[in-house]
Amino acid sequence: MTAAAWNHHDRRRELAGSSVIDELVASAVGHATTFEAPLRTPRPARRVAVVACMDARLDLFGILGLQPGDAHLIRNAGGVATDDVIRSLTISQRKLGTREIILVHHTDCGMLTFTEDDLRLELLEETGTKPSWAVETFTDLDLDVRSSVQRVRQSPFVPYRDHVRGFVYDVDTGALREIA
Amino acid sequence: MTAAAWNHHDRRRELAGSSVIDELVASAVGHATTFEAPLRTPRPARRVAVVACMDARLDLFGILGLQPGDAHLIRNAGGVATDDVIRSLTISQRKLGTREIILVHHTDCGMLTFTEDDLRLELLEETGTKPSWAVETFTDLDLDVRSSVQRVRQSPFVPYRDHVRGFVYDVDTGALREIA
Repeated sequence: MTAAAWNHHDRRRELAGSSVIDELVASAVGHATTFEAPLRTPRPARRVAVVACMDARLDLFGILGLQPGDAHLIRNAGGVATDDVIRSLTISQRKLGTREIILVHHTDCGMLTFTEDDLRLELLEETGTKPSWAVETFTDLDLDVRSSVQRVRQSPFVPYRDHVRGFVYDVDTGALREIA
Repeated sequence: MTAAAWNHHDRRRELAGSSVIDELVASAVGHATTFEAPLRTPRPARRVAVVACMDARLDLFGILGLQPGDAHLIRNAGGVATDDVIRSLTISQRKLGTREIILVHHTDCGMLTFTEDDLRLELLEETGTKPSWAVETFTDLDLDVRSSVQRVRQSPFVPYRDHVRGFVYDVDTGALREIA
């Protein structure tokens, strides 16, 4: 859909008092109707966990050639290896059998467009309180991939760390470049 | 591929000294070769953020009728609204224009199969240290969806909280059930 068509769509939705979520739920009804082959195990078939940015342009199935059932997908703002990512990886390996970890940051990331200080100040001024968490912005994409890979490799809670590799996905060319 | 075929595949890979990540990277080369239409903005077209479990069976594009470019996808063990999810949602809404949030837990979740105490003890015994983070296991799926929805609705850092809705996806039937 073009941007203009979307704006028109947005306007009609707002006038109707409905939301995008209503549309997603309607899609889910269609999905259930044609649902055929349930996957019977929570253990990923290819025993790999992917840690990536939440960015809307990253279709990890398409990029990495994954099928449903293949891999754990862990995603947050930036694809940064935060404590919550370490938590998810710990559970992924210890309880659900994964053995390898691939980290994916990407070009044109939103996390490159503002600073830690900016957002912390914005939150303080608007809400009267600062978050207890780090915003985790970065200025150097490659360096942040290395930092995330290091955080995973240094975590004692993640037992399998021989195959932990970090990449940058180029949203303009579709290419994946290995960093660490 | 069948389980037996996969085991054979695993054995051959191990003998060759290669890894699943090598296979994913090979897929990425193919992806780049056929890559045609770059999406030019980090702002999700449908202005929605999805918070879901990392489970390999959840194909959120298929379930929710999403296209690349439509939505932020935030995923962790359980789909629980941790501080890192609040961080991602804060950035998603304040810096990248999303306005609605859908949370998705699912049946047969790994997080239902062990307890907070079990994993904390396992980590303490094996590594000599306990994690500073909560494991975030749960025993009641619906209750945990409600808890996650509440955490988001109560966060002052997330400015748009009128459309925050929580669901359970049934991995056996493909149906999405609204909880909160």
